[in-house]
Amino acid sequence: MEIRVLDKGFVRLVEVFGDDFSAVQAARVSYGKGLTTTERDRKLIYYLMEHGHHSPFEHIIMKFHIKLPIFVMRQLVRHRIASINERSGRYTEFKEDWYVPDHIRTPDSKNKQGSVITSNEKLTGEAIDLIEMAIEKSFEAYNRLLEMGVARELARIVLPTSMYTECYWTINIRSLMNFLNLRADSHAQWEMQQYALAIAEIFERCCPLTYEAFLKYGYTGDLLKLQER
Amino acid sequence: MEIRVLDKGFVRLVEVFGDDFSAVQAARVSYGKGLTTTERDRKLIYYLMEHGHHSPFEHIIMKFHIKLPIFVMRQLVRHRIASINERSGRYTEFKEDWYVPDHIRTPDSKNKQGSVITSNEKLTGEAIDLIEMAIEKSFEAYNRLLEMGVARELARIVLPTSMYTECYWTINIRSLMNFLNLRADSHAQWEMQQYALAIAEIFERCCPLTYEAFLKYGYTGDLLKLQER
Amino acid sequence: MEIRVLDKGFVRLVEVFGDDFSAVQAARVSYGKGLTTTERDRKLIYYLMEHGHHSPFEHIIMKFHIKLPIFVMRQLVRHRIASINERSGRYTEFKEDWYVPDHIRTPDSKNKQGSVITSNEKLTGEAIDLIEMAIEKSFEAYNRLLEMGVARELARIVLPTSMYTECYWTINIRSLMNFLNLRADSHAQWEMQQYALAIAEIFERCCPLTYEAFLKYGYTGDLLKLQER
Amino acid sequence: MEIRVLDKGFVRLVEVFGDDFSAVQAARVSYGKGLTTTERDRKLIYYLMEHGHHSPFEHIIMKFHIKLPIFVMRQLVRHRIASINERSGRYTEFKEDWYVPDHIRTPDSKNKQGSVITSNEKLTGEAIDLIEMAIEKSFEAYNRLLEMGVARELARIVLPTSMYTECYWTINIRSLMNFLNLRADSHAQWEMQQYALAIAEIFERCCPLTYEAFLKYGYTGDLLKLQER
Repeated sequence: MEIRVLDKGFVRLVEVFGDDFSAVQAARVSYGKGLTTTERDRKLIYYLMEHGHHSPFEHIIMKFHIKLPIFVMRQLVRHRIASINERSGRYTEFKEDWYVPDHIRTPDSKNKQGSVITSNEKLTGEAIDLIEMAIEKSFEAYNRLLEMGVARELARIVLPTSMYTECYWTINIRSLMNFLNLRADSHAQWEMQQYALAIAEIFERCCPLTYEAFLKYGYTGDLLKLQER
Repeated sequence: MEIRVLDKGFVRLVEVFGDDFSAVQAARVSYGKGLTTTERDRKLIYYLMEHGHHSPFEHIIMKFHIKLPIFVMRQLVRHRIASINERSGRYTEFKEDWYVPDHIRTPDSKNKQGSVITSNEKLTGEAIDLIEMAIEKSFEAYNRLLEMGVARELARIVLPTSMYTECYWTINIRSLMNFLNLRADSHAQWEMQQYALAIAEIFERCCPLTYEAFLKYGYTGDLLKLQER
Repeated sequence: MEIRVLDKGFVRLVEVFGDDFSAVQAARVSYGKGLTTTERDRKLIYYLMEHGHHSPFEHIIMKFHIKLPIFVMRQLVRHRIASINERSGRYTEFKEDWYVPDHIRTPDSKNKQGSVITSNEKLTGEAIDLIEMAIEKSFEAYNRLLEMGVARELARIVLPTSMYTECYWTINIRSLMNFLNLRADSHAQWEMQQYALAIAEIFERCCPLTYEAFLKYGYTGDLLKLQER
Repeated sequence: MEIRVLDKGFVRLVEVFGDDFSAVQAARVSYGKGLTTTERDRKLIYYLMEHGHHSPFEHIIMKFHIKLPIFVMRQLVRHRIASINERSGRYTEFKEDWYVPDHIRTPDSKNKQGSVITSNEKLTGEAIDLIEMAIEKSFEAYNRLLEMGVARELARIVLPTSMYTECYWTINIRSLMNFLNLRADSHAQWEMQQYALAIAEIFERCCPLTYEAFLKYGYTGDLLKLQER
């Protein structure tokens, strides 16, 4: 399962450990056994989520392969309850591969920390051109430094945070839900939101009952909506 | 895969997420690609372990179902980088199910914090009888309290730490290696050691290359030995 | 600052790292400076709590010395984002020091996982006597085992979870707030609640503004109340 | 206590929680009391470190205010057992403040992941000029984007990772020792090493006994040396 994000990024599910039933199984060791049917399992998942018993959800784990700009990576890495391995700019060379937005955002007059997409076409065109040109120039400098014989780890300091990088990201569902609360939310940067939405979509497909219960009882963000069925 | 431990306990592997190759896969995102063969993978695993690059091993995760005495559980739970759900003594009743040792240990004259198995048969017999009787009495009191109508959560406070409990334990291999360093070691309590040895055996069967590299470069305990092949 | 808890336990504040201002100081590095007055600081603390920006509260840290029964310790230790050192039953001998309740709880007919304090005096008297006697017997067996020469680590397995133990517990305020959400709540065991209430009181005295903001915006439990001022 | 690092960075100790004695105090709760003298405390610290009993060192905590280039920040943030608040490029504007190296490193012919300082003056001069010019151009583009009305969070994506940022970093000594093992080591990037050395110096001044014991028994890096006294 792979979802394209931004102009050249992606979120790819490498592997999932367990499913909706894993949280139920872990919870039942606490509460003792009993008949288990899909309906009872669903009820138990709802019960756990509603009452804030989040620990059973740690036993479901997802591993993602993500391609994302450095400035988004800088936000992803702040979620400490997760395992990350990122492509190293010390050991590998950066390719001609960076993010260019297809829209321009200006400060939100109502919310000084937020931004809104501008409908000003002139501004949009000029700003995108400027961004593109600036990044290209930085990349040329990087390449010249490498040609001159400068070490990769030093040459890369001229590269902008719009450069794409890649990582493997393994995270349990409890921590993932916390991530979605913060990043699948209108207060997050727009580019971060796109990754959070892709991750939420994969989460929903792998653990539909847990996802439904999360949206109903645990979610504090404002972008994800429970679909009518 | 299930291994019996002590008189009535066990360690059962519920599920494993990934294998030797998962750490390699996560590491390669850092270093860039290249031809991969089993031989190269083995070398990379050895390289990572030797140089203390432990983060790729977080992407291999094991889930165990463990039955163990409370006094061992009290040590297991100290390993914080793991997910645990334990059977609740508030929601379920304790059964007639406790650990009785088949040997007796006396203080080690050489190491005041350690203990050694005594060969004194009289002491062994008398001490085991006394232990058994004391636990039985406690369990009778627990049952009487329940019969009188006392709540389970309160009645259980008379039960000894030799009672068996159960848990689901999900842990990544990096954290598991740290666990083995401390618990698969002669300084750990004998009963804890038995659980650590069972867990090490399952680890070896699931990830033979990683286990071998760990014993060669990362292991600081004194009980596990690399087998000649 | 020390608060007595249960019949022989206590919560003692050893040291506090920072105060209300520490979270403000950490947050201001994110948002840039500006005039700071007590009123502005209070507003910023409220803003952070209301919007779920909890990370600045990690920079306030408290260290407690706690004396508590083992069955309460077993719950405390489940909070993984904290540092604990507990008195060792392997290295030190248990003293004649255990918890005896001064009331008896029976199952709650409305909530099968809860319990209520009974007003039945006969039941109360008999059950308390039985608890006391059972623990005494266990402690006698422990002492006899030690006299016979059995190692402390093995002899202690007959001791009940009502025995008192001690620990040093260092925890940051963000993690402490999560602890209070779960343990300063009517769903927690009554004895655990008493410790949570004592800890909340110390938290309030050290960081009154943060505590007030927590109760207003972050607290999900049902025992703590914001006092009118 | 503040130490200048690189051309415009610094490491400043904001506050320290506890001292050498704090680990001793936490450890003594485990082992029981006894006479305490400075000599005994020193021996206990050595004992703990030598035998890998690292948990008591979690009770000593340091808070730093650090100014560092983004590419160093990206490495610092990987240490998950720590609390970080970083200046936000969404809420505040980047100033004309970036790192320019005073030397140039070229790939190490003996170690393909490492680099060595070149003595080639022509290369050094030209590469430094090129780095400086490239960063200046990026910063001009950033400023032009802001002038055009582009939101800060979007404009900043053209800025290079050599820009300085700031953070508050709270970390316990156990986690700090792990940090030093990896970063106060010749395999770390040179710029990262400079921060690690400054942090080690502050650690030594605050906790001289713990630092000495760490260097003697726990340190696996190759840059820090125990001084003859």
